[in-house]
Amino acid sequence: MKYELEIQSNVQTGFIDITQQVQDCVRKSGVQDGICVVFVPHTTASPICNENWDPGLQVDTLMILDRVAPSRLSGALAAHYRHSDGNAAAHIKASLLGASQTLLVENGKLVLGTWQGVYLAEFDGPRHRRVLVRIIRDAE
Amino acid sequence: MKYELEIQSNVQTGFIDITQQVQDCVRKSGVQDGICVVFVPHTTASPICNENWDPGLQVDTLMILDRVAPSRLSGALAAHYRHSDGNAAAHIKASLLGASQTLLVENGKLVLGTWQGVYLAEFDGPRHRRVLVRIIRDAE
Amino acid sequence: MKYELEIQSNVQTGFIDITQQVQDCVRKSGVQDGICVVFVPHTTASPICNENWDPGLQVDTLMILDRVAPSRLSGALAAHYRHSDGNAAAHIKASLLGASQTLLVENGKLVLGTWQGVYLAEFDGPRHRRVLVRIIRDAE
Repeated sequence: MKYELEIQSNVQTGFIDITQQVQDCVRKSGVQDGICVVFVPHTTASPICNENWDPGLQVDTLMILDRVAPSRLSGALAAHYRHSDGNAAAHIKASLLGASQTLLVENGKLVLGTWQGVYLAEFDGPRHRRVLVRIIRDAE
Repeated sequence: MKYELEIQSNVQTGFIDITQQVQDCVRKSGVQDGICVVFVPHTTASPICNENWDPGLQVDTLMILDRVAPSRLSGALAAHYRHSDGNAAAHIKASLLGASQTLLVENGKLVLGTWQGVYLAEFDGPRHRRVLVRIIRDAE
Repeated sequence: MKYELEIQSNVQTGFIDITQQVQDCVRKSGVQDGICVVFVPHTTASPICNENWDPGLQVDTLMILDRVAPSRLSGALAAHYRHSDGNAAAHIKASLLGASQTLLVENGKLVLGTWQGVYLAEFDGPRHRRVLVRIIRDAE
């Protein structure tokens, strides 16, 4: 069973909560037990499974990702990105987080810990994004 | 086929080998060919597939993760974590490593390279942790 | 349906495009709708889903990964890797990127965004590498 979400990101970088939309896909599928793969067909955004309560933590995560892959390299590094579109850092962050998340389905619902949510991490917005959701039944 | 492992971590940060427990789940499932999804329903721990031989390498990996997301930010950065529970770095490490691993099953066993093991990476222990294992048969 | 690719990497570190080989596996499987898991049974290489157009971006990504886990630690860190084979950094990079990628199959083909390709990231070559591909049909 396959579904497609259309997400409009309104920020340059940020996490967009898509837990409810993915949960809706699972419900519509009618699958009681199985897995749910969330795939992002873009190279500057990623699906992640993250803490769902403190917005400050999202700021922290973005800050650390910016330290790992800064928008502009400078100083002692004497280095620069070869990619000329100005969004090399966004591509690298997306590579680090990956293009898919595999979640579990039980009793017709996503299995998530109390503090877990599903997010689209946007690294080069604002943009129109597609998120592909596929639910595979556990045939047993 | 679904299983749940109960893991008591005895360290603040470290890798706990769960290869045998996951292998046991696969055996119990009776599935000969398919995939095995290992999902961690927590936001400060992650499942990883890693080198299984040199404990020194685990220390190295934890050290690098600490450089990426230090417990306390300091000095020239003039930055701090907004998350107030003191475990922002643990959440960020778990986000970088992800909440699930998808493994392969062949001839009723996990397919792992000679040097690969399956671990629970604990970033905010000691804690009681749950690891969810689901095995999907390849129906062909 | 399962397949195995044999890849000879000719570089110490680099990305090897395996999109076409994985696409061929999907075609041979005859599966119209489902998922495709790409698993690398090694601990110093990873499968990744990345931008397929600008080779400069691959150089950028490798540079950032080298900043995160340098081959040799130095200076103020007064730190060193405990792993004695000289390839600790390669192991750590592979742990960060993971051992598997889960892709989607639709109409008998991999679903990839316009700019997405599938790569084997080699961190400790040149070597002979195996890439395992498994395609699971969506039974609906």
